[in-house]
Amino acid sequence: MTIKVGIADTTFAMVDMASVAIKTLNNMTDKIKIIRYTVPGMKDLPVACKKLIEEEGCEITIALGMPGKMDKDKVCAHEASQGLMMAQLMTNKHIIEVFVHEDEAKDGKELDWLAKRRAEEHAENVYYMLFDQKYLQKRAGQGLRQGFEDVGSALK
Amino acid sequence: MTIKVGIADTTFAMVDMASVAIKTLNNMTDKIKIIRYTVPGMKDLPVACKKLIEEEGCEITIALGMPGKMDKDKVCAHEASQGLMMAQLMTNKHIIEVFVHEDEAKDGKELDWLAKRRAEEHAENVYYMLFDQKYLQKRAGQGLRQGFEDVGSALK
Amino acid sequence: MTIKVGIADTTFAMVDMASVAIKTLNNMTDKIKIIRYTVPGMKDLPVACKKLIEEEGCEITIALGMPGKMDKDKVCAHEASQGLMMAQLMTNKHIIEVFVHEDEAKDGKELDWLAKRRAEEHAENVYYMLFDQKYLQKRAGQGLRQGFEDVGSALK
Amino acid sequence: MTIKVGIADTTFAMVDMASVAIKTLNNMTDKIKIIRYTVPGMKDLPVACKKLIEEEGCEITIALGMPGKMDKDKVCAHEASQGLMMAQLMTNKHIIEVFVHEDEAKDGKELDWLAKRRAEEHAENVYYMLFDQKYLQKRAGQGLRQGFEDVGSALK
Amino acid sequence: MTIKVGIADTTFAMVDMASVAIKTLNNMTDKIKIIRYTVPGMKDLPVACKKLIEEEGCEITIALGMPGKMDKDKVCAHEASQGLMMAQLMTNKHIIEVFVHEDEAKDGKELDWLAKRRAEEHAENVYYMLFDQKYLQKRAGQGLRQGFEDVGSALK
Repeated sequence: MTIKVGIADTTFAMVDMASVAIKTLNNMTDKIKIIRYTVPGMKDLPVACKKLIEEEGCEITIALGMPGKMDKDKVCAHEASQGLMMAQLMTNKHIIEVFVHEDEAKDGKELDWLAKRRAEEHAENVYYMLFDQKYLQKRAGQGLRQGFEDVGSALK
Repeated sequence: MTIKVGIADTTFAMVDMASVAIKTLNNMTDKIKIIRYTVPGMKDLPVACKKLIEEEGCEITIALGMPGKMDKDKVCAHEASQGLMMAQLMTNKHIIEVFVHEDEAKDGKELDWLAKRRAEEHAENVYYMLFDQKYLQKRAGQGLRQGFEDVGSALK
Repeated sequence: MTIKVGIADTTFAMVDMASVAIKTLNNMTDKIKIIRYTVPGMKDLPVACKKLIEEEGCEITIALGMPGKMDKDKVCAHEASQGLMMAQLMTNKHIIEVFVHEDEAKDGKELDWLAKRRAEEHAENVYYMLFDQKYLQKRAGQGLRQGFEDVGSALK
Repeated sequence: MTIKVGIADTTFAMVDMASVAIKTLNNMTDKIKIIRYTVPGMKDLPVACKKLIEEEGCEITIALGMPGKMDKDKVCAHEASQGLMMAQLMTNKHIIEVFVHEDEAKDGKELDWLAKRRAEEHAENVYYMLFDQKYLQKRAGQGLRQGFEDVGSALK
Repeated sequence: MTIKVGIADTTFAMVDMASVAIKTLNNMTDKIKIIRYTVPGMKDLPVACKKLIEEEGCEITIALGMPGKMDKDKVCAHEASQGLMMAQLMTNKHIIEVFVHEDEAKDGKELDWLAKRRAEEHAENVYYMLFDQKYLQKRAGQGLRQGFEDVGSALK
């Protein structure tokens, strides 16, 4: 039986991260069916994910967003994150938040690379969460990161 | 069958954004019925929207507000946003937040223009969310903005 | 049939705003019955209002508080506001927050005037919310304020 | 019939405030039964209070905590306060928050005095909330404080 | 009958705190069964804990996380903490938050020591919460800390 995976993304973001996540997941397994739902902005993501879970039957969901550089944008990202947290607790389903802050990258080219790489690595995590919990447990406490390089363990 | 769209706005705001949103939506379609609900301030919007959804049967709602310039106003806006987030998660319905911060514009004239333009573009989004999801999906990750100009994609 | 209006206030505040709100409402209509509930501090207001709504049957409630000058007080006010927001969403009833920050006024005399004036104007809003929604709608986007002077519309 | 009063406190705090609150309440009335529940830290208090209310049948609860001096501690206190707020709204019961910030006092001796005095005065408030609502209403808007001196009314 | 204890941890953390907590608990008692659940990051912990409680039947849960040094990481930690708070209130079960901020330690070696020591001491608290409430009550208000040294009582 296929497992439904939800992918929620925005027209606000400056990179099409959803396509990368979808491609990554489809390359790893054919046991899933992906349902994509595009909304205008970051703050529309939480209820979009909740609808993917409760109305579409998704077992897990990825929320892709790209907060801007201004203070106002940081507050929006915080509100969106709180909403994603609450949506998970109301449904008992994971929503993997993939937010790439515009100011994490030095220019548009790096931003494009970072967003795509982070979406890819989070999509891989979704695969392990669904099909190979042991893989994650073996990597517990190893300082893994999505996007930029892993930092490794404290005693490395 | 007509779909009910809720529009909640305030006497606190310095621009009548609701009239613009209503006009925009009515110009785009005759398949909706708009229910307007004016409250005193921004923090009255979340329960107003929840009532529009649960007591009036609105499928989607627009919340129009205009936070002032002071720190106190920023905190109010944050609280209102958290409330709008929660109202969405409790109802599984989208509430499109259209907040225009007084300090986004350099003077009253620009504020009036910005507020009306943002209300218009968000009203257009509501139309696409209701009737043309594919339109939004094709624009995913393209750096769209409401009010000021679109920023475009990272690799533009 | 009389409509029940709840008024929650505190012993922490430095002005008896509740008496002003009660007098204002009683002067405007005899169709309401007011139930007052005094608690020690601002953070006791949200559950007080929820009890007024759910245990006393109030249709709408006014929460009167006066945050102090210190950073700690600002955080308390934020927590109280978040609670009032949540209480509204859990009950589908409006709670009109009337908070007067001690540092909004230059001295005790102005604080007393401001607190009473704001309580009065918010009580008037409660009347319009209950009995004359159209009155508020006609004033949408006109920059109305409670306490200090109205700012008017952006194009004034 | 005795009314159950919950008292939740922590091993993190530097003063045994619970014993003072218990003594104060027992000196004022014999109509209550106190149930004490000690947890490690401030952030364990909200669910402790909710359990006292829902599993032990407490009508009202006192939550005693002592946030440390660091920024990190302030954030913890905020999270604990938000939890106490939510616990009240989920149960329709008051939880009286008695937090004494370590940096409110100039040294250990004053901290000990302040914590005990605040616990005592809040315990007195709990008595009035349970048995003499009118006492509080007569003191509405009088600038009462717990711990340090009352500030009095704005027009004093 | 064995009591189920949940342990949720992350691949993001730089120290394997879960193994220390598990070892500590197993050394103290054989009346418990531990269920471990590793997720990618801190913000995945709240729903992981809620699932351990509601789907696996855990009586109490430990959430182990390690916030990074950047402002962005502090906001994430705050969001995760709010989620853990909410998860507790929704289930009436304790979740012991064990967060070690990367910037609490001067280098990797101290970070490793601190994280393991804090995990150990919180695991001991879990034992007392389950089997010896009186032990905690006797230590109420004594300034106990997990990780670094206890601060002791205010009058020490």
